[in-house]
Amino acid sequence: MSNLLIFGHKNPDTDTICSAIAYADLKSQLGYQVEAVRLGEISSETAYALETFQVEAPRFIQSASNETKEVILVDHNERQQSVDDIDSVHVREVIDHHRIANFETADPVYYRAEPVGCTATIIYKIYQEKGLSIPKHIAGLMLSAIISDSLLFKSPTCTEEDVAVAKELERIAEIEAATYGLNMLKAGADVSSKTSKELLTIDAKEFSMNDFSVEIAQVNTVDIQEILTRKQELETEINSTIKARNLDLYVLIITDILENNSTAFVIGEKTAVFEEAFNTSLTQHIASLPGVVSRKKQVVPPLTESFLNK
Amino acid sequence: MSNLLIFGHKNPDTDTICSAIAYADLKSQLGYQVEAVRLGEISSETAYALETFQVEAPRFIQSASNETKEVILVDHNERQQSVDDIDSVHVREVIDHHRIANFETADPVYYRAEPVGCTATIIYKIYQEKGLSIPKHIAGLMLSAIISDSLLFKSPTCTEEDVAVAKELERIAEIEAATYGLNMLKAGADVSSKTSKELLTIDAKEFSMNDFSVEIAQVNTVDIQEILTRKQELETEINSTIKARNLDLYVLIITDILENNSTAFVIGEKTAVFEEAFNTSLTQHIASLPGVVSRKKQVVPPLTESFLNK
Repeated sequence: MSNLLIFGHKNPDTDTICSAIAYADLKSQLGYQVEAVRLGEISSETAYALETFQVEAPRFIQSASNETKEVILVDHNERQQSVDDIDSVHVREVIDHHRIANFETADPVYYRAEPVGCTATIIYKIYQEKGLSIPKHIAGLMLSAIISDSLLFKSPTCTEEDVAVAKELERIAEIEAATYGLNMLKAGADVSSKTSKELLTIDAKEFSMNDFSVEIAQVNTVDIQEILTRKQELETEINSTIKARNLDLYVLIITDILENNSTAFVIGEKTAVFEEAFNTSLTQHIASLPGVVSRKKQVVPPLTESFLNK
Repeated sequence: MSNLLIFGHKNPDTDTICSAIAYADLKSQLGYQVEAVRLGEISSETAYALETFQVEAPRFIQSASNETKEVILVDHNERQQSVDDIDSVHVREVIDHHRIANFETADPVYYRAEPVGCTATIIYKIYQEKGLSIPKHIAGLMLSAIISDSLLFKSPTCTEEDVAVAKELERIAEIEAATYGLNMLKAGADVSSKTSKELLTIDAKEFSMNDFSVEIAQVNTVDIQEILTRKQELETEINSTIKARNLDLYVLIITDILENNSTAFVIGEKTAVFEEAFNTSLTQHIASLPGVVSRKKQVVPPLTESFLNK
């Protein structure tokens, strides 16, 4: 029998990779034959976490239906963020903490979404509910996921539950979150060795908003200006992505993980919708977004709302 | 502050009413200010359950946005089965056991769906997870919901979990499921006093299948032939519903709760899709469906599949 595949979204971040690995451990403990896989390159932040806890990166897959009939989605549900042939497999479960959109099933499904900061927090609760114990290395990865999604508990997406779960995981993993977390975030924020093309795909997601296609990429840094020196090169890359994928809008969020602010670099036919959403004016495609660090909570909802009337 | 409203689907069945009441109890125990409400008439089956456990029927509402900003959906998620102004309120939680379709949020949401036979089974698990106790009368209503949705554990939708939870609820409610359940089902199956119009709305749900509008009504009986004596009158009613609501297909499932078989009465532009889905031929709009008792598991999936290629 083929394995049940478990995976997160394309352009995987630390939560997507670590939650797939953790949920695979949980399902294995329950007797299922499962495998965590990934839909894209491992980021340097995630690589730092995997190395620290000595876990192999999941296997890369391009399509799922050639090897399995059933899959479990973690950390996403929107079809366009999932494996290309998602419509050819049966989604058996979803564990997620995002909005629900572009998702539809013919049969009842196990769907567990909670408005917490991180998928790993929900998986922790399922471990508890099932009375299973969390291996030390898995706890380390789950803690890494929470640190990553919450920017060390500073993002507005971070809930009390995330903080409480992180404390428990710290104990099990025997690691200090503050020091380890900052090192991990810095490992991810070092983009000096990345090409502009690579930089744009570290954490990019496509959204369908009132039938418009919007790509929102995010990159963490300790120096926004350093990234903006590549503005020309980034613009060329973004324009070719817009053309290739027929996008209506491309938003790059450059987030300063020390200052907890962002700068947006916005290109496309629908830049006016962005300006309306954030009540701002772009200057040479640039707008500063003070206090914004969360794509999910501070970028997607106002943009979705603005696109509603277009 | 206005109450957080909790409700199930239109044309409420026993699970929808009892799960709304039970989940309101659970959320109250957690300190929320909530109220269970209903979107339609109480069926005679549900009335029997409410009377047995001496619980008042929830208040009827026509719209939600005039009194609250936030709602919790139980036992449904599809927009067209919900309150008419669902798009004007924020859906805070969904507890459901159906397919996911026509549901979309701008923000992350608490969504808990499991492929079990009854919403009340999931609510039982949440009571356990939160360490809350279930009052005797609430246990009685939850047991009624499971008996109703599973036709006394005989429907193919009924899982081992539903049976195990029902056993626990039997104990808490201090009632014997087999005898009580048959009486409750029979109370619902007595449709002699109902007009044909009433009969068609006891348990009718609209589905969107590949952009076609399909209404599937179900009625329980101990004598299918008795219902079919009203065929002419039912046909007139159905035709006027199709016209008024611009439906592509109307399927009435008449289910014999003692024999566990159904007869379908099918009208509309797309009757051929029904014939294809069930590999059958309609004779004067009628086809027998041996062994079919579950709309969710045995009617919606094959019809959805057939409509996919239209």
